[in-house]
Amino acid sequence: MPDFKKLLMENAEAVNEALDKFFPMHDDPEGQLIEAMRYSTLDGGKRIRPFMVMASAGLFNVRQSSALRAAAAIEMVHCYSLVHDDLPAMDDDELRRGQPTCHIKFNEATAILAGDALLTKAFEVLSDEATHDDPKVRADLVLALARAAGAEGMVGGQMLDLVAEHHTLMIPEITRLQRMKTGMLIAVSCEAGAILGKATEGARHALHAFAHDLGLAFQIADDLLDVEGDENTVGKKTGKDIAAGKKTFVTLLGIERAREQAQMLADQAADHLEVFAEKADSLRQLADFVVKRRN
Amino acid sequence: MPDFKKLLMENAEAVNEALDKFFPMHDDPEGQLIEAMRYSTLDGGKRIRPFMVMASAGLFNVRQSSALRAAAAIEMVHCYSLVHDDLPAMDDDELRRGQPTCHIKFNEATAILAGDALLTKAFEVLSDEATHDDPKVRADLVLALARAAGAEGMVGGQMLDLVAEHHTLMIPEITRLQRMKTGMLIAVSCEAGAILGKATEGARHALHAFAHDLGLAFQIADDLLDVEGDENTVGKKTGKDIAAGKKTFVTLLGIERAREQAQMLADQAADHLEVFAEKADSLRQLADFVVKRRN
Repeated sequence: MPDFKKLLMENAEAVNEALDKFFPMHDDPEGQLIEAMRYSTLDGGKRIRPFMVMASAGLFNVRQSSALRAAAAIEMVHCYSLVHDDLPAMDDDELRRGQPTCHIKFNEATAILAGDALLTKAFEVLSDEATHDDPKVRADLVLALARAAGAEGMVGGQMLDLVAEHHTLMIPEITRLQRMKTGMLIAVSCEAGAILGKATEGARHALHAFAHDLGLAFQIADDLLDVEGDENTVGKKTGKDIAAGKKTFVTLLGIERAREQAQMLADQAADHLEVFAEKADSLRQLADFVVKRRN
Repeated sequence: MPDFKKLLMENAEAVNEALDKFFPMHDDPEGQLIEAMRYSTLDGGKRIRPFMVMASAGLFNVRQSSALRAAAAIEMVHCYSLVHDDLPAMDDDELRRGQPTCHIKFNEATAILAGDALLTKAFEVLSDEATHDDPKVRADLVLALARAAGAEGMVGGQMLDLVAEHHTLMIPEITRLQRMKTGMLIAVSCEAGAILGKATEGARHALHAFAHDLGLAFQIADDLLDVEGDENTVGKKTGKDIAAGKKTFVTLLGIERAREQAQMLADQAADHLEVFAEKADSLRQLADFVVKRRN
């Protein structure tokens, strides 16, 4: 595990450098927008989604600079979703990764616009020819990300999450919610490498299946952290789900069964990687890390 | 002019039909998101940007179904920007085209998410192969729209607009603000036809120049409506700029000079179309309409 953490950190470093270059500061009066975009992306998350892009791209010998651009684009979408999710009208969170959320640090209007601009930038980055020589690869990346992030994916999942506050969900509904809200972006992170590498449909499906199981494992681990985690380690308010009366995998299954379920899903995820042999070792380690992490 | 209004209306009808198909209603619990997306796009605007796409595509014999998809995508971006712009943290508007704004009709969270989903959908539509057989065209459309809509374009302009509330802008700064906030999306609407039709750089530049001048004319006409327009005809609150102490072309130039300037820009815009001869007549009529409209 220490070796994997080092790998994850080195990868995060490379992604941070790439992100940094996409948002050059300038003196124009609207510079606060760029500042807010930087604040919301360069704050040192674990960069798990970018790691998935880089690791999946590694399976197909994709050029590092291509993979980094796709990784940065997907992270921008993840970060924008957090900025909007934290807004007072949404989850109303004041703390994120131990720091004031974007609308607290700046203001609500700036946070809304910074989120909008990050989402837009992601598609600019993917469609630029610097990302890949083949325009079909660029268009396919845009299409896959847009599908995963839109009304039938992440944003739909966020809506479902809001609606769920007034409904009691059962396991199938929670599974659907989490699949949309977080699973589909995780899936596209893993598939991005296959798209970049023009991999066979079979390889892409294997990665999709890996991501599908891993996404749920990831979410259950997140729910467990909300119950068991220490606020200082996790870096955001914990115990929120229970306080809000929210049904999660943990409230429905109990801590023990939820932990077993997460481990089972992570193992199942890893099984889908067999076709890639030892080339997929870093993805296997990721699956293990996801369910064992403490923040 | 009556003939042009009929053309504009017929075009709007076709765009409305296309938009309608992109947002099929469904019974899932998150259906309110789709409802809000429909509410914010199917409310019968004049569809000036889609008209630009269709008219510019007409110059290069682009397939109607391709042009309609690009037109719908750009309109989605325009509509999302209105939804977010109307939010309490932004312009705090309760009325848009004579109807309650999205966050009044639904709620703030739904309006934020509907805007996010509309923006995302625009890129999904453009990158889908149904929009064009050539993936380079699809990637180029995405790139052009993302650049026009992002931090260096529309969203940057909105940020600048917010910052401007606390600054006194002069004509060059207002020109830059309006160019970013509305001009660049108008420009990409006119260029979309050239991208779809794989036109020469020269043709694309002519359309860009046309749109550049027309965009400013459009904005001055908008400022004039805010001063002179009747609230019922315009469909939104008027007199807001003056009440907010906002500097606009009209407050800086005065009504008469602003009207002259708008007409001059519209004429100048039309001059760029010479290379297309009578094929560009509908764009010429548009330029005339833009400065003469009453809502």
